[in-house]
Amino acid sequence: MTYTFSPIGSIHSPFKSKQDIQSNRNKRPDGYAEIKGQIEIHDPYAAGLQDIEGFSHLFVIFAFHQSEEGGLIAHPPFDHKPRGVFSTRSPHRPNAIGLTVVRFHGREGPLLHVSGLDMLDGTPVLDIKPYTPRDQKSEARFGWLEEFTQ
Amino acid sequence: MTYTFSPIGSIHSPFKSKQDIQSNRNKRPDGYAEIKGQIEIHDPYAAGLQDIEGFSHLFVIFAFHQSEEGGLIAHPPFDHKPRGVFSTRSPHRPNAIGLTVVRFHGREGPLLHVSGLDMLDGTPVLDIKPYTPRDQKSEARFGWLEEFTQ
Repeated sequence: MTYTFSPIGSIHSPFKSKQDIQSNRNKRPDGYAEIKGQIEIHDPYAAGLQDIEGFSHLFVIFAFHQSEEGGLIAHPPFDHKPRGVFSTRSPHRPNAIGLTVVRFHGREGPLLHVSGLDMLDGTPVLDIKPYTPRDQKSEARFGWLEEFTQ
Repeated sequence: MTYTFSPIGSIHSPFKSKQDIQSNRNKRPDGYAEIKGQIEIHDPYAAGLQDIEGFSHLFVIFAFHQSEEGGLIAHPPFDHKPRGVFSTRSPHRPNAIGLTVVRFHGREGPLLHVSGLDMLDGTPVLDIKPYTPRDQKSEARFGWLEEFTQ
């Protein structure tokens, strides 16, 4: 059984190539806060954006369209140890699905102005979901990552 | 362009059918906190679970395998107004991809013991990602949902 998805939109980001992304930004909770851009929702889906105003943060689920075949061991850029891929946010993973929480600043028709982007320009968007109280986990612990989070 | 994914695992949940899910649990941040079960990772992917211990919360990205064809307007169970689907977590959406943050209690081989499940038993899992400091948005606002969150 497989599941096939078509993009509902794409990302406009200042990161034009992988080399533009400074991955040590991942160490800070606000590491990408200043990275601004837009999510452009394709016309047939724009009506689904109704009522999105008022949410301050959105989940973007996207395809890592330039990732390599995903193995089970990842090499986080700021760590010296290889890690099981499901304990990382590496783009190189069995299913190349990405997830980023962005800050939502406002909508112009099918265009969502956001910040906190860490994806490449042109990244295909598979879904947008509101960030809700159930997603706030203030008491969370972060395993191997804690050593690297400031 | 489409993107095709194969499940890396499946959910063991007490919700055997849609009728078992009391969706007014969605109103409370801890509405599903007591719902316990397991994520079973299929054998070929189990090695990717290395280093997952120590994270208290995980994102589960899954296929809404029993959802209906997704329109652009959703009808949240506890609201009287139809809402744009991208401002809801409705399973009936253009790409039937689900996202839930679960609490992670421990691992037995390919089995992850978790709580906070809101998916049906047998739900196909597409990805597991650690919940990181970048996902903590304590200052978030929740648009139309705020009226319904306690």
